[in-house]
Amino acid sequence: MEYIPVDGGVTAPGGFLAGAACAAIKRKDRADVAVLYSQVPAAAAGVFTANRVKAAPVLLSMERLSGGRAQAVVANSGNANACNGGGGLSDARAMTAAAADVLGIPEEYVLAASTGVIGKRLPMDRVLPAVRKAAANLSRRGGSQAAEAIMTTDTFRKEAAVSLALGGRRVTVGGMAKGSGMIHPNMATMLCFLTTDAAITPACLRQALKSAADRTFNMITVDGDTSTNDMAVVLANGLAGNEEICAPGEDYRLFVEALTAVCQKLAVDIARDGEGATKLIEVTVRGAATQEDARLAARAVAASSLVKAAVFGRDANWGRILCAAGYSGASFDPGLVDVFLGGLQVAAGGSGLDFDEAKAKEILGGEKVEIVLDFKEGGFSATAWGCDLSYDYVKINADYRT
Amino acid sequence: MEYIPVDGGVTAPGGFLAGAACAAIKRKDRADVAVLYSQVPAAAAGVFTANRVKAAPVLLSMERLSGGRAQAVVANSGNANACNGGGGLSDARAMTAAAADVLGIPEEYVLAASTGVIGKRLPMDRVLPAVRKAAANLSRRGGSQAAEAIMTTDTFRKEAAVSLALGGRRVTVGGMAKGSGMIHPNMATMLCFLTTDAAITPACLRQALKSAADRTFNMITVDGDTSTNDMAVVLANGLAGNEEICAPGEDYRLFVEALTAVCQKLAVDIARDGEGATKLIEVTVRGAATQEDARLAARAVAASSLVKAAVFGRDANWGRILCAAGYSGASFDPGLVDVFLGGLQVAAGGSGLDFDEAKAKEILGGEKVEIVLDFKEGGFSATAWGCDLSYDYVKINADYRT
Repeated sequence: MEYIPVDGGVTAPGGFLAGAACAAIKRKDRADVAVLYSQVPAAAAGVFTANRVKAAPVLLSMERLSGGRAQAVVANSGNANACNGGGGLSDARAMTAAAADVLGIPEEYVLAASTGVIGKRLPMDRVLPAVRKAAANLSRRGGSQAAEAIMTTDTFRKEAAVSLALGGRRVTVGGMAKGSGMIHPNMATMLCFLTTDAAITPACLRQALKSAADRTFNMITVDGDTSTNDMAVVLANGLAGNEEICAPGEDYRLFVEALTAVCQKLAVDIARDGEGATKLIEVTVRGAATQEDARLAARAVAASSLVKAAVFGRDANWGRILCAAGYSGASFDPGLVDVFLGGLQVAAGGSGLDFDEAKAKEILGGEKVEIVLDFKEGGFSATAWGCDLSYDYVKINADYRT
Repeated sequence: MEYIPVDGGVTAPGGFLAGAACAAIKRKDRADVAVLYSQVPAAAAGVFTANRVKAAPVLLSMERLSGGRAQAVVANSGNANACNGGGGLSDARAMTAAAADVLGIPEEYVLAASTGVIGKRLPMDRVLPAVRKAAANLSRRGGSQAAEAIMTTDTFRKEAAVSLALGGRRVTVGGMAKGSGMIHPNMATMLCFLTTDAAITPACLRQALKSAADRTFNMITVDGDTSTNDMAVVLANGLAGNEEICAPGEDYRLFVEALTAVCQKLAVDIARDGEGATKLIEVTVRGAATQEDARLAARAVAASSLVKAAVFGRDANWGRILCAAGYSGASFDPGLVDVFLGGLQVAAGGSGLDFDEAKAKEILGGEKVEIVLDFKEGGFSATAWGCDLSYDYVKINADYRT
């Protein structure tokens, strides 16, 4: 591990500022618009929802990232600006134009992101003044305010940052994210904004983000629904002064490791904060014949409603774990599989062991429940994260719009 | 429609008898073992879980159906006999041997089915006497007793039967099934036993069952989990005396229509009786460019936790409907889609309409909620069935084993 955790989030790296303001989109008592800004134009890349139905800000940001450069992001919570036709696209553009105007940068350098209810137009009469206000009040301290402004049903703000040495220079990577329903591979109702003062080409940055997201954001699941609005974007402004990373190599490897660490912290926080969740579930599949088998099985176990409900109820129902692996599409021999809850082995060679139920209940009572399946077929492993399924998930989602 | 509904279930067709008995596998106060018997050997076919982890009775029945003939089925609830290794397979064989002994037929003509908790051995000291008792007390009235004996968390027994004229003869098709968690395409924790006195070759029967299952059992979803134990089997004993159906043609078409009607009644009852369900959800996608697009989208909407929770809460959150279609894998243009709740149109061309919220709440308050998406791209349609997601689903599944 070549990086160390540091305080802060998106404004931890040099040259990044952020601000927030209240447009009263859904609630009057909290900031719901955020602006993130780099003092110089940055290399930029993004990964976006696989949903065929993409929100207006997703379409706009995808288009603008094709050039590989950006300097700011404007985001709002409380309204997804999805399924609003051409009007929604105009609204997203207007938000970026307002920010660009205050910041004195080209509109094309501003990305947009939204999260919240689908199919309602934004209250632009309140949103545009809030965007201007947020853009006019940028600070390093504003990073945490921005992280709070993008929250929806999240119960805590999600920030992470690490620093590392690259070619004699100190480089920092930071990020903020929001969950917390509709979380599923690939990309969920998840917004994630990553920043770094590393110098790196847009092509390498794109590859690094994809690599980090595949092991983190694409391995978390809350409810199996993939949203219309998900995105993770990264801006790299080069102010650390390291020699620009322009090809795979040691510097690239170190950067990807640090970026992955930030993404993993944010992803695990999203899973832990899944709607109604009382526990984090970490599922590791090891001994798989291929990487894809390990990924498929780990994600299916973490996503199973029956596994999630059993963990909520502290029921050591390991049969549901093996069952979920069985329908995951992963290739394995059920007769070989060992299953562990925490350190306790509950099945060997696909059959149940006479394990200590009291010990299992104790393990399932923890804040984090580790499930391990060993396929005993090869050398590949993967980890997925999810949460338990509680009464409160139903409550939160039974009447979300009102 | 060439068939008419008739009373009864598996014993409605001529020559079928059934019986039930209590082995106290999970509960002492109800029958949990069922035997179904045809007075003459029958053509037989089955469709089975797609899960890689298959319970012992599934493996045994698949093997025995390779010959295309069977005469009896022995089934139990309360224990899935899955993930029990070689011992589980011996137990399943012993159950069929006990039934065959009492019935005086070859063991190879007896199929087995189980449903319940995974990874525990059956209490064979109680199961075998119960199998013998059920096999010794067969009657036509026993059809309903058998339908009750296979229930787990089902709240009502599921039976259906229709009759039709085939070549001047009256032919009857009957069936029974159980749900009600782990219900998802393809095949769920679903056991279904179908009977008919029609004469039909095993090859045609297999094709007919596959065709019926694809439009019914493979279009229902409760929680996205595909179980280790699902099966639907059909026995056709030919006692109606119709000319044997041995190739596609008018008689085959009429038979498939009747078989599909029985399967659909049972499938919809399973969805309606999903664990914790308060409402049946019927999702129809029409105007799709291909049959597969219609099927994928209808199933994804019916399976979405967010859609299900919104219906439970009577929240007309149509954005989640369109969102689920978007991640289903179906190909369509989001900008063309119309969405209807009951008769009420809530979105047109992919954008929201200013609909009557009170009217929508009234529609969502019904026992059956119809959701229609019109892709306006082609002539294909498909219907899927599911249920809402309530607090009781979590409650039922948080501590199932105890």
